[in-house]
Amino acid sequence: MEYFPAIPNARYEGPDSKNPFAFKYYDPDEKIGEKTAREWLRFAVAYWHTFTDGGADPFGAPTLRRPWNDAPTAIEAAEQRLDAAFEFFEKLGVEYYCFHDHDVAPEGETLAESNDNLDRIAKLALEKQKQTGVKLLWGTANLFSHPRYAAGAATNPDPAVFARAAAQVKKAMETTKMLGGENYVFWGGREGYESILNTDMKREQEHLARFLELAADYAREIGFEGQLLIEPKPKEPTKHQYDFDAATVIGFLDAHGLADRFKLNVEANHATLAGHEFAHDLAIASARGMLGSIDANRGDLLLGWDTDQFPTTLSDAVLAMIVVLRQGGLAPGGLNFDAKVRRTSIDLDDLFHAHIGGMDAFALGLKVAKRILDDGVLDLNIRKRYAEWDSTLGEEIESGKATFATLAERALEHGEPLRRSSEQEKIENIFFRYLVTR
Amino acid sequence: MEYFPAIPNARYEGPDSKNPFAFKYYDPDEKIGEKTAREWLRFAVAYWHTFTDGGADPFGAPTLRRPWNDAPTAIEAAEQRLDAAFEFFEKLGVEYYCFHDHDVAPEGETLAESNDNLDRIAKLALEKQKQTGVKLLWGTANLFSHPRYAAGAATNPDPAVFARAAAQVKKAMETTKMLGGENYVFWGGREGYESILNTDMKREQEHLARFLELAADYAREIGFEGQLLIEPKPKEPTKHQYDFDAATVIGFLDAHGLADRFKLNVEANHATLAGHEFAHDLAIASARGMLGSIDANRGDLLLGWDTDQFPTTLSDAVLAMIVVLRQGGLAPGGLNFDAKVRRTSIDLDDLFHAHIGGMDAFALGLKVAKRILDDGVLDLNIRKRYAEWDSTLGEEIESGKATFATLAERALEHGEPLRRSSEQEKIENIFFRYLVTR
Amino acid sequence: MEYFPAIPNARYEGPDSKNPFAFKYYDPDEKIGEKTAREWLRFAVAYWHTFTDGGADPFGAPTLRRPWNDAPTAIEAAEQRLDAAFEFFEKLGVEYYCFHDHDVAPEGETLAESNDNLDRIAKLALEKQKQTGVKLLWGTANLFSHPRYAAGAATNPDPAVFARAAAQVKKAMETTKMLGGENYVFWGGREGYESILNTDMKREQEHLARFLELAADYAREIGFEGQLLIEPKPKEPTKHQYDFDAATVIGFLDAHGLADRFKLNVEANHATLAGHEFAHDLAIASARGMLGSIDANRGDLLLGWDTDQFPTTLSDAVLAMIVVLRQGGLAPGGLNFDAKVRRTSIDLDDLFHAHIGGMDAFALGLKVAKRILDDGVLDLNIRKRYAEWDSTLGEEIESGKATFATLAERALEHGEPLRRSSEQEKIENIFFRYLVTR
Amino acid sequence: MEYFPAIPNARYEGPDSKNPFAFKYYDPDEKIGEKTAREWLRFAVAYWHTFTDGGADPFGAPTLRRPWNDAPTAIEAAEQRLDAAFEFFEKLGVEYYCFHDHDVAPEGETLAESNDNLDRIAKLALEKQKQTGVKLLWGTANLFSHPRYAAGAATNPDPAVFARAAAQVKKAMETTKMLGGENYVFWGGREGYESILNTDMKREQEHLARFLELAADYAREIGFEGQLLIEPKPKEPTKHQYDFDAATVIGFLDAHGLADRFKLNVEANHATLAGHEFAHDLAIASARGMLGSIDANRGDLLLGWDTDQFPTTLSDAVLAMIVVLRQGGLAPGGLNFDAKVRRTSIDLDDLFHAHIGGMDAFALGLKVAKRILDDGVLDLNIRKRYAEWDSTLGEEIESGKATFATLAERALEHGEPLRRSSEQEKIENIFFRYLVTR
Repeated sequence: MEYFPAIPNARYEGPDSKNPFAFKYYDPDEKIGEKTAREWLRFAVAYWHTFTDGGADPFGAPTLRRPWNDAPTAIEAAEQRLDAAFEFFEKLGVEYYCFHDHDVAPEGETLAESNDNLDRIAKLALEKQKQTGVKLLWGTANLFSHPRYAAGAATNPDPAVFARAAAQVKKAMETTKMLGGENYVFWGGREGYESILNTDMKREQEHLARFLELAADYAREIGFEGQLLIEPKPKEPTKHQYDFDAATVIGFLDAHGLADRFKLNVEANHATLAGHEFAHDLAIASARGMLGSIDANRGDLLLGWDTDQFPTTLSDAVLAMIVVLRQGGLAPGGLNFDAKVRRTSIDLDDLFHAHIGGMDAFALGLKVAKRILDDGVLDLNIRKRYAEWDSTLGEEIESGKATFATLAERALEHGEPLRRSSEQEKIENIFFRYLVTR
Repeated sequence: MEYFPAIPNARYEGPDSKNPFAFKYYDPDEKIGEKTAREWLRFAVAYWHTFTDGGADPFGAPTLRRPWNDAPTAIEAAEQRLDAAFEFFEKLGVEYYCFHDHDVAPEGETLAESNDNLDRIAKLALEKQKQTGVKLLWGTANLFSHPRYAAGAATNPDPAVFARAAAQVKKAMETTKMLGGENYVFWGGREGYESILNTDMKREQEHLARFLELAADYAREIGFEGQLLIEPKPKEPTKHQYDFDAATVIGFLDAHGLADRFKLNVEANHATLAGHEFAHDLAIASARGMLGSIDANRGDLLLGWDTDQFPTTLSDAVLAMIVVLRQGGLAPGGLNFDAKVRRTSIDLDDLFHAHIGGMDAFALGLKVAKRILDDGVLDLNIRKRYAEWDSTLGEEIESGKATFATLAERALEHGEPLRRSSEQEKIENIFFRYLVTR
Repeated sequence: MEYFPAIPNARYEGPDSKNPFAFKYYDPDEKIGEKTAREWLRFAVAYWHTFTDGGADPFGAPTLRRPWNDAPTAIEAAEQRLDAAFEFFEKLGVEYYCFHDHDVAPEGETLAESNDNLDRIAKLALEKQKQTGVKLLWGTANLFSHPRYAAGAATNPDPAVFARAAAQVKKAMETTKMLGGENYVFWGGREGYESILNTDMKREQEHLARFLELAADYAREIGFEGQLLIEPKPKEPTKHQYDFDAATVIGFLDAHGLADRFKLNVEANHATLAGHEFAHDLAIASARGMLGSIDANRGDLLLGWDTDQFPTTLSDAVLAMIVVLRQGGLAPGGLNFDAKVRRTSIDLDDLFHAHIGGMDAFALGLKVAKRILDDGVLDLNIRKRYAEWDSTLGEEIESGKATFATLAERALEHGEPLRRSSEQEKIENIFFRYLVTR
Repeated sequence: MEYFPAIPNARYEGPDSKNPFAFKYYDPDEKIGEKTAREWLRFAVAYWHTFTDGGADPFGAPTLRRPWNDAPTAIEAAEQRLDAAFEFFEKLGVEYYCFHDHDVAPEGETLAESNDNLDRIAKLALEKQKQTGVKLLWGTANLFSHPRYAAGAATNPDPAVFARAAAQVKKAMETTKMLGGENYVFWGGREGYESILNTDMKREQEHLARFLELAADYAREIGFEGQLLIEPKPKEPTKHQYDFDAATVIGFLDAHGLADRFKLNVEANHATLAGHEFAHDLAIASARGMLGSIDANRGDLLLGWDTDQFPTTLSDAVLAMIVVLRQGGLAPGGLNFDAKVRRTSIDLDDLFHAHIGGMDAFALGLKVAKRILDDGVLDLNIRKRYAEWDSTLGEEIESGKATFATLAERALEHGEPLRRSSEQEKIENIFFRYLVTR
């Protein structure tokens, strides 16, 4: 059974193409510096948005009728979904996918049944992977949809829920390992609180730390060598989520001695919901050597919820890729499109258009970022701006030789520091030129 | 010279009073549990807002004509201002005040002159303190108003500015010590960035850490035994400030080995600008034993800037005082009103009304918080809600005995966890009753 | 079949009661001025949140298992739901309810079947109303949940959807009339756009106006004498909704000659999503004589979506009731709780607690508002503040006698206007005293 | 005296130029359709930000030392400022400027003195205009900076302030006329309220309407034929401003019979503060034929205040220019840069870089918009999407023939409307291609 019979493979046709179905910028084999575009970008499709989700929103029923989800039983639908997914991956020309356990296999009546379902689908998925060469970027467990998790998974007031969540992560991690997944992600959408009145925040955070520790222990135990990633989000669905943003998560990991066992999966729209630019949270994570992977999408800054739109803002893609290039790449992480088509974009074609647009935006972002770094314009500007820190005084301070006493003495002697322009508009213009000039 | 000749001392007249000039709830000597209201609340007046500020805003010139600021020279104005301030403190019946160096003494042409100005005023202030018994809650250095700090103080691209800032903090700390200040505060309004394009975030943060370390060293060196406090704020005036919120600051201190040398001064309106409830940031800091002091004010959640209004929201005051009571008090910190009268409230009377309102709101907040804790309603509810964590399973997890393997086994055996209501509306109603019933 | 067998009728026990199940402030027969509390408040229960909704959110499945919704067919469930609803209304002691067509009766396979379903349930509802005395405050049609409305109902790019929506409103209006509904509401959750790129905003707005005009014509045609109400909301589910806020809706009605045919149903959480205080949008509508009814709930200003919490903020309730008292009441409108229990508040009891809290908050709000108006404190202050407008100059301007020429002449003669304090903090303190003193 | 001696005229060098001082896209004489770039864009420099402002912010003193503002008296500084301004206009190659009365001439001790100051400078300005050919796009009166306006100008509780404001607008309008200004702008930054507790909103809004009416009468009286423009802004400096957004202002003008006498000056950053996209407010105004002029700048959507940055977001410029092209141009309005250099961009060069960047962004925006409209891609898509509205059913509804009865009958007959994809991602990708392809 073919699900996209009318749809050809998406191909690179170059910037002059007006074919909406073609890549204008993403040429997977193009060399960008020492790696190919494919190697830098490591694009992944999000199973949940693209194959499982039906387009419901808080005020509306599902709008997206996917033929593969139409089957007598949930497990048969899951099998069809897998077929559709791999057909899609191949036609799109993407190398990776990501999933939650219950995206790929339906939750059963019991945990045992859920595990069986997952085993059954995972076995098929492994075959598909072999046939197609498509790989698993990361797996994760859905610890937020089921009512049992309404008040938290690891941070639930009931340890039986903690145990249940542990069992689920254990299985999801085993499955991820079995499928050769290169990362395993933790997103704690229910790890937080709804009201401070009935919450023991301190104890809940300790439980979260314990959960992560046990997960990391288990990964080691089973020899899962993929990267463990935490994905920050400040709120939604929960009023306050403990993994608020990159800085909060890093602080939390430090405080609980877990910083060498986890990295971060930074999402654009989660960063902006926390009041940060996407590039900010990437830079925060990267500066600590903890930027592990990216959920590439786009929010609507005039809306207060996660819109998970496909990324088509070139400046954001460029700034993201600058961070990625500077740290030498994302592997074993990648660029997952945690993005969904609008619920009015009901055609199967729309799924392709959406991904093609996102991939092209990031491919162009990569090229522009490379040019900017090769030309050195930002680096040069920064080096010039901070040049005095490489002088005697700067070194004295950085090396620890200076004290308040020596500095005060110096300040008394030297008078007012020189004022220098930050030249912000000039650098913004230079950046603009890179965005619009090919 | 008297500045408020027509204004009597503010007195406690009890809840039935309709005298707008009287305290209805703040009776300083009333025993609330083991301490008096005065001892719990430790109210302080912010010198900058109340005596120095003229009511300018980004679109308008100063509106507040303060007679004490009308003098032939800045230093004479500063002397008059000091007189006015202590007259105000006494009439209001407040025990503490807080200042930045340049609130009390004008910045001179040179650093040496600035230091002299500060010495001259500090000497007078010390006398005033002795005469009146009013004490210094905390001092700080203004590292944000002068143009030299436009691109940061400790995080400036120029180390000469770092040195200048060090000199200024050194002097402000010495002055704070001389005046018996019980705390010293760091607010980094310019420590952050305007544009990620021209910023070396990592290096800047290292400079900030170094600055704090040198400050703590210097405090030790001169025997300043007061508490060192960092005041988080996410943005404004700077686009992004490194001391974003309580969690970020704690993480930063941990990462740089400074967590045992600093506590936090949490401000209501700064917490809300970071997307948190005031009580959230208090609880985060307190949970780590790092809630050192409070800037009690109120923001307008429909506006995106720091409005610094006087606090008159009872629920916020109650939640704040619950945190304070639970940690056994705030000393050596206190409750500073980092709040200003509206720029249309131009009369000297308005300064009294504003403070009386804020003090009454927090005094009533204290009483209500005490009743809530004494009645145990929240604690009981929380204990009941988390009761299972004190059972065998909870203990196994918390103590580290459980592993993913044992937990998964248990989950397979026990089936679906029981579902229990969070009873959120019920607890909100109980809280409401405490707010409205006397 | 009884659905709340263990739950007694909620009764008024007065402010000293600690019974969480009792009203402390809502005594329906208490005279507040010329009317009883019941007559002023006209409380209504929202059928959708309380009886139909299952507690799903964008990241989670339904959590609320309502026994009445458990039946072999949707129509049988609807019948049971009706029983439960009226049992609830009586036990709670509420006089009114509100519904969307598909809350009470399931949508059928065809429009005809949907209409039949609605007829069948409406007939039963009428009986229930007669038995219990509970009345319909307003009905409405759900023009947002079904996929056909994903891109708008009246503003859909396809006029066939406009026609379908017209048919549905026609039926809902007939049903509302049959049940003696006192109002009919239009909430245009999908009337707006997702992207300006593919939207003909002007034409869509004309279609919306036409739709409202036809609806008003039809109301007249069938002799429906209830009030027609538009409920503003700025966004969610749609990126931009045409009925953005009270001012926008009034402007829209004016522009299309519809202002004498519609009033507004103002919702607290919708006003705040538009950047306004609840009281602001009430005042805007009331000032034009267009405040028809209220959706009383509470948002979370730190979250960017409609949380629809039960209202327990006394100050908001007081400010709302001041507007209501000033305009002499809300009838034929009322106070509908467009509020839902949290999805973790899974017990049937929670439904009662939630409503009791909301009703008590507004009952106390009514009493406090009445005292404030009786004491005249706000009015007096305003009269004093604007007193000069009742002087010669004020009258000249207001009456139209003054021109720029006469005013400029006067300004040249009189010099600088006197400055007067707005006394904002003083008036805030007075307001605070009313909130906390009984 | 030359103020920018080292700075050459800014010239067009084309897209390949790397000279940061050159225009890459703004070639004033280039024909874009039937007009030149200059004629479409009608760029104007904002006198206040570029020549008068010193870079102060709520937490910091002025940072920008402008040599022209350094003079023994304010009026001499004003004269120098005028010289600098016209030198700047010429070197930049801009055709228009805009001012508030007190940007160009200092406020005097009395109104008479202020008027004299304005006369003196205006006379010089007229000469400069003649010499250079630079023209006045619009004038306005600053009714927000002086303390007398703290509680409103037209909406002040004191009619004497209304009179004072009238006198000031009278003079500013006369001056604008004398200088051949093509528009006159009203921005009501203080027309609104700080607290609903002490405000008579209804009366204030009537005063505002009266003020506008008198102003329009006066314009007619003196034969000022320029366009009268209202500039919406939702808040800042005032908590709530009556001219909230385009829709609110249009509604207000309609309600007071003023809609044929005023158009709108829409500002990007004001629209976003009101929760709208820039293009939204432009489209709202244009749809009513009321888009008169544009304040082209850029906000920071993660900050809650007006940042007034120079516009460098191509997509915003394109969407704006699409609206402008569709309505056939902006004249007699124009594109004013209500934007300022960052306070750390302290060099005179920075003023040029900033304007060059903004002009280039809008010039490129114009070209891309023209290509999009010429290619018809958006229009075609919209025509296709709404095609059914041009069919029989659509016409019946639009023409007024259909009623709820006929529509319901049709809906019963025809069954479920067809579902069509909105193809949002596809259209976004097409738009993206126009942004990045030259």
